[in-house]
Amino acid sequence: MPDPGFAEWRARVDSALGRALPDPEASPHRLHAAMRHAVLQGGKRMRPLLVYASGRLFGAGLDALDDAALAVELIHAYSLVHDDLPCMDDDALRRGQPTVHVAFDEATAVLAGDALQTLAFERLSHAPLDAETRVALVGQLASASGAAGMCGGQALDLDATGKGGAISFDALKRLHALKTGALIRTAVRMGATCAGASADQRVPLDRFADALGLAFQVRDDILDIESDSATLGKTAGKDQAQAKATFPALIGMVASRCLLSDLAAMMDEALAEFGDDAAHLAALGRMAIERDR
Amino acid sequence: MPDPGFAEWRARVDSALGRALPDPEASPHRLHAAMRHAVLQGGKRMRPLLVYASGRLFGAGLDALDDAALAVELIHAYSLVHDDLPCMDDDALRRGQPTVHVAFDEATAVLAGDALQTLAFERLSHAPLDAETRVALVGQLASASGAAGMCGGQALDLDATGKGGAISFDALKRLHALKTGALIRTAVRMGATCAGASADQRVPLDRFADALGLAFQVRDDILDIESDSATLGKTAGKDQAQAKATFPALIGMVASRCLLSDLAAMMDEALAEFGDDAAHLAALGRMAIERDR
Repeated sequence: MPDPGFAEWRARVDSALGRALPDPEASPHRLHAAMRHAVLQGGKRMRPLLVYASGRLFGAGLDALDDAALAVELIHAYSLVHDDLPCMDDDALRRGQPTVHVAFDEATAVLAGDALQTLAFERLSHAPLDAETRVALVGQLASASGAAGMCGGQALDLDATGKGGAISFDALKRLHALKTGALIRTAVRMGATCAGASADQRVPLDRFADALGLAFQVRDDILDIESDSATLGKTAGKDQAQAKATFPALIGMVASRCLLSDLAAMMDEALAEFGDDAAHLAALGRMAIERDR
Repeated sequence: MPDPGFAEWRARVDSALGRALPDPEASPHRLHAAMRHAVLQGGKRMRPLLVYASGRLFGAGLDALDDAALAVELIHAYSLVHDDLPCMDDDALRRGQPTVHVAFDEATAVLAGDALQTLAFERLSHAPLDAETRVALVGQLASASGAAGMCGGQALDLDATGKGGAISFDALKRLHALKTGALIRTAVRMGATCAGASADQRVPLDRFADALGLAFQVRDDILDIESDSATLGKTAGKDQAQAKATFPALIGMVASRCLLSDLAAMMDEALAEFGDDAAHLAALGRMAIERDR
């Protein structure tokens, strides 16, 4: 890790998540326990780290960023719970633990995902920021996670699954720009919004985030082939087993690695104007490309 | 119908919903079509009508109420899509049409419900109201629909199902205060919030809404026994088949009807101070008790 800040920020958002999630001792116990299971099993916390890094770049205090950081992680966690359901990707392992519908049951997994999404918007509505900023964050997060964002990308993924190579390179990029990219772009943008950054200042950040989102997914596809379940904490080799459209399947492993290098250069270029101030964002970009889980 | 306003308001929210939902001609088609199927099949629109009636009582214009009205209906519609899933209530008929997972598939039904929830918050964030009001509406709707509201009530219902009469009368009331009541209370409260009503003014409205929410559920339980699927537009007799905890099962049909009369009196008493100005709300209270579907 190039900067000790990440470990602190991760501990910070983990602690905020622990406080925001409902008490497992209170009724309905099973729902509360399932929500906590879905969120508090570790995880890279890439999206909250992006919120903190982007907000700090424009001078926001950490207190002003906590709710945005945890809201984006709650949306990510809910999407994993629903994606893992038997009717979706049917996965039993996540972050090295049984998925929510395995540890609990399917009905509880549906409800826990639903309630995690709701909690994200509830927290944003109570963030210690002026009302204009809070309502802007709600709009940004909703736009990135609904039918025109993450949910839409997942729907495109369902359409493409089983069709193997029958999807074009551009269509695959669009699918992931929605499924993974929209939330990553919004994490970066929400940090800047909390800090009161102007629309002009956010333009290079969008370019950075779009490259990072795509790099994150290309690396994910490569790891699914080259890594093992123990390292990943989730089932390896699933993409091929389910005939998912992936970058290695479509353009090959060599071209996929080449694409990663191009995206790394695009990230550096997008952040150049900020100089050393963008060191945290740059480090997160490298992590997305170099990570092994 | 005691007032021609309801037909107009229903047409108004239907039209707003049609415009707010994503274009079925745009990609991802299947997700968009499923979202529209879930929402645009008629329905009583009780919750939007409550928003309009409550907002009008305090002098809000209809334009100021449209987004709150459609947001609360989107949350209601998403909850029906997920409740009907095979892993939940496993229902094939809703509003006289095949449920979303039957007309489409389970994965699409999960995603459509997810995206409908997101759309509710997105619309509130863009309502033509000041930022303080918009963010208050987001907080109210989230609080009513999450783990401490509707989702929590559904979780309690899952716990109670199959246990027949093993739940107390108070526990059954609490279950429905969350599962059905919280969203109905919030519909009334959101209308008042759009109109800028004070906290004091909202106190009798909460009493009215709590009685209405409970009455709505008691009537639902009675109809499930006494009506048929063609009239209801959903499968009749499901509660008994699934050994659901219901008011008739717990306290009998005579006592259930008696409870409805008490609740009607409580609604009248709560609205008394508003006199004829509350005629729309009073009419909606009567509809909840006298409806046959």
